[in-house]
Amino acid sequence: MAKLYFKFGAMGCSKTAQALITKFNYEERNMKVLLLKPAIDTRDGATVVKSRIGLMQDAIAVDAGEDLFRLYAEKYADCDVIIVDECQFLTPEQVDELADIVIQKDVPVLCFGLSTDFTTHLFPGSKRLFEIAESISEIKSVCTCGAKATVNARLDDDGRIVTEGSQVCLGGNDRYVAMCRKCWLKYRSQGLPVTDRT
Amino acid sequence: MAKLYFKFGAMGCSKTAQALITKFNYEERNMKVLLLKPAIDTRDGATVVKSRIGLMQDAIAVDAGEDLFRLYAEKYADCDVIIVDECQFLTPEQVDELADIVIQKDVPVLCFGLSTDFTTHLFPGSKRLFEIAESISEIKSVCTCGAKATVNARLDDDGRIVTEGSQVCLGGNDRYVAMCRKCWLKYRSQGLPVTDRT
Amino acid sequence: MAKLYFKFGAMGCSKTAQALITKFNYEERNMKVLLLKPAIDTRDGATVVKSRIGLMQDAIAVDAGEDLFRLYAEKYADCDVIIVDECQFLTPEQVDELADIVIQKDVPVLCFGLSTDFTTHLFPGSKRLFEIAESISEIKSVCTCGAKATVNARLDDDGRIVTEGSQVCLGGNDRYVAMCRKCWLKYRSQGLPVTDRT
Amino acid sequence: MAKLYFKFGAMGCSKTAQALITKFNYEERNMKVLLLKPAIDTRDGATVVKSRIGLMQDAIAVDAGEDLFRLYAEKYADCDVIIVDECQFLTPEQVDELADIVIQKDVPVLCFGLSTDFTTHLFPGSKRLFEIAESISEIKSVCTCGAKATVNARLDDDGRIVTEGSQVCLGGNDRYVAMCRKCWLKYRSQGLPVTDRT
Repeated sequence: MAKLYFKFGAMGCSKTAQALITKFNYEERNMKVLLLKPAIDTRDGATVVKSRIGLMQDAIAVDAGEDLFRLYAEKYADCDVIIVDECQFLTPEQVDELADIVIQKDVPVLCFGLSTDFTTHLFPGSKRLFEIAESISEIKSVCTCGAKATVNARLDDDGRIVTEGSQVCLGGNDRYVAMCRKCWLKYRSQGLPVTDRT
Repeated sequence: MAKLYFKFGAMGCSKTAQALITKFNYEERNMKVLLLKPAIDTRDGATVVKSRIGLMQDAIAVDAGEDLFRLYAEKYADCDVIIVDECQFLTPEQVDELADIVIQKDVPVLCFGLSTDFTTHLFPGSKRLFEIAESISEIKSVCTCGAKATVNARLDDDGRIVTEGSQVCLGGNDRYVAMCRKCWLKYRSQGLPVTDRT
Repeated sequence: MAKLYFKFGAMGCSKTAQALITKFNYEERNMKVLLLKPAIDTRDGATVVKSRIGLMQDAIAVDAGEDLFRLYAEKYADCDVIIVDECQFLTPEQVDELADIVIQKDVPVLCFGLSTDFTTHLFPGSKRLFEIAESISEIKSVCTCGAKATVNARLDDDGRIVTEGSQVCLGGNDRYVAMCRKCWLKYRSQGLPVTDRT
Repeated sequence: MAKLYFKFGAMGCSKTAQALITKFNYEERNMKVLLLKPAIDTRDGATVVKSRIGLMQDAIAVDAGEDLFRLYAEKYADCDVIIVDECQFLTPEQVDELADIVIQKDVPVLCFGLSTDFTTHLFPGSKRLFEIAESISEIKSVCTCGAKATVNARLDDDGRIVTEGSQVCLGGNDRYVAMCRKCWLKYRSQGLPVTDRT
C-alpha cells in the first residue's frame, strides 16, 4: 500500500536536493513523477524547483485554493508518484487531498519541507502532515556548534535574530539560518549578530 | 549535549511499556530517573504509570499549571534523566520548560505519548514537541489489516467510529482502537461497528 | 508485502522486552504469534524467553540444524507472524529460511538480537540478517558516560575486559556489559576493572 | 562526541549524491571536508566522485594499504569532517582507522556505500562498518514493483541474473540493478532477462 511521507528538515538541510534526487531515482526506474510546489513560493520562478547545490527541475505550481486530488485525477493520473517541495506552504485541506490520492489511487506522495517557522511554530501544512502522514522522517543538518540544527532563525539586516513578524516573508531583506536551539536562545538573549556563522 | 525526545505512537503501541523499560535501563546503569505524568490522566491512580502488558511504576503527577523547570530544579535536581508518560497532555508551556531543563541542566528528557486525538488533530503538548524536540521517532504498531496504525479511533457503545466530542474523554464509555487511515475512513463512511477487530 | 526485520542492540538494551511487547501487541489484535529462540541459549530454560524487567513467555527452542521453513509450514502455518529472540545464534541458513517464509508465505518475521560479540565481530546469524533483512533498526541504549552503547564487553572475575575466548560463552563466570567504544578502548588499554559501572 | 556513520543503500539509491550534498552542507557552514574514495574504484577517474544526477567533486583516492589515521593526522588535520564514498571497498583495518579518528580527534566520519555484493554477501568494509559504526542508517530506494530494493543484481549481456564471479567487477560488461529480494529470486529462478526493468 502506498504511503504519505513527510520528510522535514531545517533551512539549508538540502530538502530540495533530496526531492530532486528522489524524482531522479523514480524516473530511472521508468516511473512518472508529478513534481508540485505551492505557488506562494516564487523565489525561483513560478514553476522551477531549485536546490542550492545546483539541481533544478520544472514543477507544477499550485495555488492555495487548488484541489490537488482533482488536479491529479483530471490531469496527471498517469503519474506513478507525487513529490511536493516546500510542502509547509500547502493548506491543511491540500494535505488531506494528497492523503486521499494515497489511499484511493495507491500512489505514494512524498512531501519535503520545513516543519517550523522562525518563531518555532509549525506551518499549517506541516502540522497537517505530522497529523496524518504514514511516514515521518527528518533530514538532519548540523549547527556550526556541531549539534543538530532544529530552529530556523530569521535574521535582520544586522544579523540579529528576529522573533516577530509575519510567518511567511520570502521576498524581504531578512535571511534565515538553521541552528540548534541552544545557540538560538543564546544569540537571541544576547542580541548579538550571528553573521560570523553564515 | 542532552536532547528532548518525542517518542510518539498510536493507542496500544506500547508507549507506556517503552517508557518503563527506558526507566529500567537507565536505573540499571545507576542513573536516577524522574518519572512524570500529567495529572489529567488519573485512570490508574494519580501517581501510577501502568502498561497493559503488566509493568507498573510510581510517578510524579503534574498539574497543568505546574512549572516543570522549577519542579526539577527545586525538588529533583539529583535526577539524571526525566521520562514523561502521556506527554500529549502537557501544556505547550510545560514542553518549553522541559526544553529549558535539557539545555540549561544538560539532562535528557524523553516524552512518550500520542500525537493525535480521535479527530486526527494534534494534542497541544504533542504539537509543541513536534516543534522543538531534538529527536522525533515513532513507536510503530499495526492495524489488523497489516498496514501501520496511525489513527486513534474513538468508538461508541456499539463499536461505531465517533468523530465529534471533547478531545479528552478518559472516563467515559468510549473506547479507542488504533487503525490505519484507510480502514478508519472505510469504517467511518460505512457506519459499521469495528467490534470484530478489537 | 511482509518483511524480514532485524532489530539489533547491545547487551541490556531490552531486546527481549521489545520482542515480548511486540508479541503482546500482535496478540491484542488477535494475530497468532510464533515465538522462537535458538536452543543454544538455555540460560532461562530451553523454552522460556525472559526479560530482565520481568516479562516472560514460552517459546519454541530451535536447534541449529532445524529447517525453519519446514517447521513453520508443517507445524505453525496458522501463525500470522514470527518473532525470534537471540537471533544472533541462528545459522545463516536459518536466516535464509526465515526470509523464504517472508516471501513465500507473506508472513512478517521480526528478529531481535545482538549484532556483535565481545570482540566486536558479527555473529553469523546477525551477519546474514544485515545482508538480507528488509528492515534494519537499532534498539539504542546508553553507556554510563552518556554516549550510545555499541560494544558488548566481556568481563572476567575481576571486572577486567576480556578480548580472547570463544564467541559463545553463556554459562561461565564472565559477565557482559554494554559500553561505548571510547570507554571500551579506555578500560581495555588501562587494564582497569569496570566494576564500578555495573 | 563525534560518531562513525554508515549510510548504506542499494545500487542507484543516490548514495554518492547524498555524500556530495552532505559535503556541500558542511562547507556552507564553513567547515572543511576531507572527501575520500578507495582507489579500487577508478570508473570516474582516480580522484573524482561523481553522481548519476550530475554532481561531481574531487576526492583523495586511497589505496587499500594506506593508513587513514596517519593520512588524516599528517596531511588533513585541519579538516572538520571526513566523508567516504564507496566505503564498501575500504579494508576492515581502514574502517578501524577511521573509528580511531572519530574517537581520538573527535572528528565525524560519514561513510556512504553498498552493504552487499551481487551474491547478497557483505563487502569486507561494510561488514566492519556494521560492527563498529555508531550510527547505521539506510538510504532507501524502490524496486520497480514498488517494494524496497535490497539486492544488487549483477546482469550479464543478455540481462540475466549472474550469481557467480568475483566480488568486485567494475570494468566488465556486467551491469547492476537494484531490486527487491522477491523479484530477484523470481528472475533468478526463471532465468529470464530483466532488461525491461532497467
